[in-house]
Amino acid sequence: MSKNTNEAIQFARTNAERFQSELFEMLRFPSISANPAHAEDVRQMAQWLETHLRSLGLENVKTYPTAGHPVVYAEWLGAGPDRPTVLVYGHYDVVPADMEDGWDTPPFEPFVKDGKVYARGATDDKGQLFIHVKALEAYLRTGGAPVNLKILLEGEEEVSSPNLAPFIKENLEMLKADVCVISDSSMRIVEEPAITHSLRGMTYIQVEVQGPKEDLHSGFWGGAVHNPALALVEILGKLYNPDNTIAVPGFYDDVAALTPEERQMIAKNELTEAQFKEATGVPAVWGDQNYTIRERVSARPTLDINGLWSGWSGPGPKTIIPGKAGAKLSSRLVGNQNPDKIYQLLKQYIESIAPPTVTVSVSLVTKGNPALIPFDLPEMQAAARAYEKGWGYSPVFTRGGGSIPIVADIYDLMKIPVVMMGYGLDSDGLHSPNEHYSLAMFHRGIETAITYLDELAALPRP
Amino acid sequence: MSKNTNEAIQFARTNAERFQSELFEMLRFPSISANPAHAEDVRQMAQWLETHLRSLGLENVKTYPTAGHPVVYAEWLGAGPDRPTVLVYGHYDVVPADMEDGWDTPPFEPFVKDGKVYARGATDDKGQLFIHVKALEAYLRTGGAPVNLKILLEGEEEVSSPNLAPFIKENLEMLKADVCVISDSSMRIVEEPAITHSLRGMTYIQVEVQGPKEDLHSGFWGGAVHNPALALVEILGKLYNPDNTIAVPGFYDDVAALTPEERQMIAKNELTEAQFKEATGVPAVWGDQNYTIRERVSARPTLDINGLWSGWSGPGPKTIIPGKAGAKLSSRLVGNQNPDKIYQLLKQYIESIAPPTVTVSVSLVTKGNPALIPFDLPEMQAAARAYEKGWGYSPVFTRGGGSIPIVADIYDLMKIPVVMMGYGLDSDGLHSPNEHYSLAMFHRGIETAITYLDELAALPRP
Repeated sequence: MSKNTNEAIQFARTNAERFQSELFEMLRFPSISANPAHAEDVRQMAQWLETHLRSLGLENVKTYPTAGHPVVYAEWLGAGPDRPTVLVYGHYDVVPADMEDGWDTPPFEPFVKDGKVYARGATDDKGQLFIHVKALEAYLRTGGAPVNLKILLEGEEEVSSPNLAPFIKENLEMLKADVCVISDSSMRIVEEPAITHSLRGMTYIQVEVQGPKEDLHSGFWGGAVHNPALALVEILGKLYNPDNTIAVPGFYDDVAALTPEERQMIAKNELTEAQFKEATGVPAVWGDQNYTIRERVSARPTLDINGLWSGWSGPGPKTIIPGKAGAKLSSRLVGNQNPDKIYQLLKQYIESIAPPTVTVSVSLVTKGNPALIPFDLPEMQAAARAYEKGWGYSPVFTRGGGSIPIVADIYDLMKIPVVMMGYGLDSDGLHSPNEHYSLAMFHRGIETAITYLDELAALPRP
Repeated sequence: MSKNTNEAIQFARTNAERFQSELFEMLRFPSISANPAHAEDVRQMAQWLETHLRSLGLENVKTYPTAGHPVVYAEWLGAGPDRPTVLVYGHYDVVPADMEDGWDTPPFEPFVKDGKVYARGATDDKGQLFIHVKALEAYLRTGGAPVNLKILLEGEEEVSSPNLAPFIKENLEMLKADVCVISDSSMRIVEEPAITHSLRGMTYIQVEVQGPKEDLHSGFWGGAVHNPALALVEILGKLYNPDNTIAVPGFYDDVAALTPEERQMIAKNELTEAQFKEATGVPAVWGDQNYTIRERVSARPTLDINGLWSGWSGPGPKTIIPGKAGAKLSSRLVGNQNPDKIYQLLKQYIESIAPPTVTVSVSLVTKGNPALIPFDLPEMQAAARAYEKGWGYSPVFTRGGGSIPIVADIYDLMKIPVVMMGYGLDSDGLHSPNEHYSLAMFHRGIETAITYLDELAALPRP
């Protein structure tokens, strides 16, 4: 153990309340990357982080503009060139949140109840990225960290990080590190922390159907116009086969089959139907019967409708044939599916079943590669020890169902292990109304992150 | 001809510009009956009408509250008990209109271009109802009308007149008349005015699908949750058979078959594919191939999706499984279909195909009976003569595709002929962005309405 690891942990405990207040400051920024109307809020969030990181004594602190939202970078190289360098990645942007979605309290006013803070971004990812910032602060205030640290924070993760891979390519030397750690995932229960070694990729598309040139009176024209909303539902109704497999030809062609060993490992973390129904509120579990629930939500590809719109959705009747209808669809991909190829397959299929009575267009919204990282790497095993010592429980290695496209990018571009140490709970409600984060887990996460740096410092150098 | 019919027509010509200004005043009220937020605007529109009718010298002018929006009533019985009494019906409410629907100018600021006034309600129905008000004014300012007049204006036609039939039932004595005239329909071209002798009824429903209890992260849960938007499109995708007939069992059971004679009459007013495509902007005509286009849009029942909503429809991606999805659907009915029976058939069918993985609910939004009135009645033939003399062209008798539920109610409750003399054009864009009305037709309509009262006065008394 490094000489001051215990002091750093003690410092974190003493300053727990201030750490929380600072997190709440972050949560007040509506840094919604998907909505251009919030671009200034995203910029101010980046500015706050830059100022904060500089105040901790980090060096080369800078906000880098990109074609989209900025990247914030900072480093501390005080451990010296003979010690390993750890790259911490996090994202300070969030998905949209509106009261009418069902929030009980305003999503950008952190509200504490029963030891949890409720706010958009609480667990995804502001609360988790801040764990690493505070772990570093704890070391710096007690004599320095046992490893060098580089911190890379982006503002576009929720829109699939279109500008981060280019940024990494242009700054490979500056970012050079021995391992990357990311906390943007979660565990089933506190007693079973999870190291994610696989993430799903994504192909996100938009389908638009144009019928008449504008909304029409449904009495006047109804009966001889192919309603674009009807045409859309007829198309989307053909996305799945009756056995809940995806009907798009070629969709499964590149999916790497699960080995019996891997299925066994996944089974350790299985979800029962009762647990699944309890967590989601669905009346019954759905999906491909050839796979277990956990396999379906992590190791198998999906195709979901994320949004649907046409005509009148306000109160009362409006008797129109809508002029147009649209849908957002996204597919979660697993190794070795290619997002571009899947986009082409989806587009071809939808165009092939589009009727001549309407005009159908399919466009790509965003995409990201899936990632699959070996879990027997020393940096992965060090993370397991950090959880045992800092968190108090042995972790499981899991496949995450979500997508952090940058994980595949870092792994591919920088050729270093990416260790995903989740500090959230599956039930935190990320991307949902009333997203929340356990403050106890925030503090336990800081101690685990402190411990992990110590474990990494102790690894034999190559 | 009554002694002062020519003077009345002359008065209308002299006062044409003032009549237009008064119409524009009406068009400025956003009297949207479907949206509770506009209830006060609807009330103010009624107030304006009451004040205006009183200023013309009408008697018993009164605004009657209902369970919804008010009814405005006024009468002039100066022709004496030995002359016929004419009931004029119109509606002063309008369908919703928002700039983002595609309006070139604000929908409640009348804008004149090329002899047309652009505004929501211009043709449906403010411009048309005002024709009768101004025709009566022209007679009253030149010595009195040849018939007694009763004017009944409602504010809920666009939400299927839920409170008008009860009002009529309670006020049968006050409303007693020999004939009812309604101008709330249109003609194909100016040279071919149309008397509508049939209207479609309506069953308007809402379908709601609840999946998970709230929006979920699509990566976390995708693959084992039946996406409610997918469940909805799967259900709605089964509304039609491949031949574009409606798949709901029993739907067509009560439809009165068209006789060869009637099909021949409808054929006189046929729409070509080219005309239909030009008018609507659709790439191809759609529908039941066993019927002509004109039959499909007027003499056959329909089932349209009027609105569709789920999840995220804003800019960029949002990776959720929506908690719920919904649709508004409406069926235009023809004689002898019953709206309540059709509601039951729709509800039963949708519930029968709803999967157990989501919760589906079907509710009735509004309904109205279809109407079919013999076109050989003397009051109908008098209307034909009024068009010949006042408009300058012989009319056709047509079936209207739209719904004015109150037509069936008046016909059934009051046992008097309902004569639908349209003064709009099919291309006026009612219920669409940039609804408009020809000012020349407004003035020509006033002269025709003046002439019609004269023709009614000349009919032999029973």
